[in-house]
Amino acid sequence: MSSSSSASAPPAAPGDPLACIDTPALVLDLDAFEANVAALHAHAGARGVRVRAHGKAHRCPEISRRQIAAGAVGVCCQKVGEAEGFAEAGIADILVSNEIVDPAKLDRLARLARRVRLAVCVDHPDAVAALARACVTAGARIDVLIELDVGQGRCGVTTIDEVVALARVVAAASPALRLRGLQAYHGSAQHLRTAQARSQAIAAAARRAALARDTLRSAGFGCYEVSGGGTGTFAHEAASGVYTEIQPGSYALMDLDYRANEPDATTPALRQAMGVMMSVMSVRAGHAVLDGGLKAVSVDSGPPALRLPGWRVHGVSDEHTVIEPVEAGCEVPAIDGGRAGVPAPLLSHLPALGQRCVLDPGHCDPTVNLHDWVVAYRGDRVEAVWPVLSRGASR
Amino acid sequence: MSSSSSASAPPAAPGDPLACIDTPALVLDLDAFEANVAALHAHAGARGVRVRAHGKAHRCPEISRRQIAAGAVGVCCQKVGEAEGFAEAGIADILVSNEIVDPAKLDRLARLARRVRLAVCVDHPDAVAALARACVTAGARIDVLIELDVGQGRCGVTTIDEVVALARVVAAASPALRLRGLQAYHGSAQHLRTAQARSQAIAAAARRAALARDTLRSAGFGCYEVSGGGTGTFAHEAASGVYTEIQPGSYALMDLDYRANEPDATTPALRQAMGVMMSVMSVRAGHAVLDGGLKAVSVDSGPPALRLPGWRVHGVSDEHTVIEPVEAGCEVPAIDGGRAGVPAPLLSHLPALGQRCVLDPGHCDPTVNLHDWVVAYRGDRVEAVWPVLSRGASR
Repeated sequence: MSSSSSASAPPAAPGDPLACIDTPALVLDLDAFEANVAALHAHAGARGVRVRAHGKAHRCPEISRRQIAAGAVGVCCQKVGEAEGFAEAGIADILVSNEIVDPAKLDRLARLARRVRLAVCVDHPDAVAALARACVTAGARIDVLIELDVGQGRCGVTTIDEVVALARVVAAASPALRLRGLQAYHGSAQHLRTAQARSQAIAAAARRAALARDTLRSAGFGCYEVSGGGTGTFAHEAASGVYTEIQPGSYALMDLDYRANEPDATTPALRQAMGVMMSVMSVRAGHAVLDGGLKAVSVDSGPPALRLPGWRVHGVSDEHTVIEPVEAGCEVPAIDGGRAGVPAPLLSHLPALGQRCVLDPGHCDPTVNLHDWVVAYRGDRVEAVWPVLSRGASR
Repeated sequence: MSSSSSASAPPAAPGDPLACIDTPALVLDLDAFEANVAALHAHAGARGVRVRAHGKAHRCPEISRRQIAAGAVGVCCQKVGEAEGFAEAGIADILVSNEIVDPAKLDRLARLARRVRLAVCVDHPDAVAALARACVTAGARIDVLIELDVGQGRCGVTTIDEVVALARVVAAASPALRLRGLQAYHGSAQHLRTAQARSQAIAAAARRAALARDTLRSAGFGCYEVSGGGTGTFAHEAASGVYTEIQPGSYALMDLDYRANEPDATTPALRQAMGVMMSVMSVRAGHAVLDGGLKAVSVDSGPPALRLPGWRVHGVSDEHTVIEPVEAGCEVPAIDGGRAGVPAPLLSHLPALGQRCVLDPGHCDPTVNLHDWVVAYRGDRVEAVWPVLSRGASR
């Protein structure tokens, strides 16, 4: 059995002009990408905080390699399959910033730990025991971060007593397991729209993490890492004096949801580096249709935004995106050439059949996961095409 | 360059019990699938209407083969890449029910037409001319359906004059192109919630298609096919006396959005055959967390529904689905074993770490496209695992 298909051919080649990219395609503006990486890494470095760049945003080892070359200590990811992909591509320091409980997945994780520096999060003693068994069987050793729920309301223990109880279970499994510290990730805080709300949420998270860390240390446990913080809040974690490591992923690519946050004077500005290129496949009276839809761009955080002056997205279906003039009631040429009602300013940039457009996605992570390739461009030329090696690696 | 990854290992093997499926995984209840196929094909057959089963819903040739074995005349699909995948898997009659305008894609389409019976939709004379050139170059012949917008407001010409004008362009390109008929698909009518609204919308679409067909015939053009109609409305197209062929796809799998339609006495009932299996990865006070999220189930038509009595979906993020008890304010055991507030009826089915759950997706097409494999089961055992061969084939 094989899952290979004709979908796997790359949509462009280095040197191609942008208008020759086969669409729909995921595209990355390298100038913006490099500026984002430089800005965030400099910000964290100046505050003595390590960057562990999250691979779940892009699932692309080539992007991770560039983040590591720019100072990241390694990657984090959410899934064993992602970790395997990154390890296969030569990434040597991986944190699975998530709970793994399935025995078969724990066996894969333990085998992986023989090849790379590996850590994983825990929030349940049964899972710690199962992880320890897998490590003993594989002859491997894994670092553990106890996940503390600092406001996300998803995984993670909620009381300091539970943190200490889990630390005891981890310690009892030494030397197979070693307590590295705490995972204190507040994902939902990143999407609070005001700078003040984000700042307050992370201040509370940092206080909670500091209490857990200090209690662990008082009880004689090592806890040298407090890891957490993503694109929407990393400046607050970096300034907290508590977090030792941040885990941003989207910062390198960016999306509309993060751009909707009120800017924060303490946070470096990030540019929209990632987009989805589509082509005009139908031009009708009053609208046009692009050749990509829900299978090319995720709409869980709202529809994508079109980079085409005077036009906006009207709707997205499986394989189509309908676009319309921003000004209500104006018309584009019908097939018979009639142009009644088209405002003069629009006439200079009416879409033509086959014309390429780029859309900024509402949410980058699930959008990247729809594509097998990242077309990296600089200016008006394709510079490289990278496989999204861990596309679909959610197991 | 290769886009292969560790993600491509199948999540189960034939004979496995359901509790051993690696998650998240796309699962298909074969009894329900076969019942849906039998019910719809019998309904259409009794009315003398052909079924051209839409492959965009599942992108899986093995499912198409079973639909054809059950009487479908062939498949339709939206993309050249899908058509290539189906042809590669041995499907011999394919309609690309969509406009293709890119010259490179038209070249691929023409090459494919040398191997299979192929048709494609058009709505612009420039695209017809480009298609004809590609066919001449390839020494191929392609059938053409003129797409008439019958209410969808997306692709397709809107006037009868345009239909006739396009027919002339197609005729001028004979023998490379041959006019097969009309594409008259009203996608949005399928999601109108009342049976009356759907019936009225398709009646109007059929009148419009009949007028175009009759006008073409009066002008001396052949037009023997009127194709259209999907899962939400196929009984109306089949009863219209105008449509010769219906194009349902979701009917074999089903999703929450179609189930939200008011039932219609004229339409055979369809069962939920497709689901996404996930495992419980964290059990907290008041909620539990499943190990799949936006990268395993599409939420464009709303969140998935959980098949676990007493529980519902609270939220879906990239790799997590948080579930909670249906009764507000009730609690599930915290890690310390406290059970305060749990209503007695819930105690018998509290989720356990590692427990499998199945979720019914809001929208099947983009959900299938997130997976490399369909795990087909019957009763409590896996019967087969099929590749989603054209997963990602949106180019």
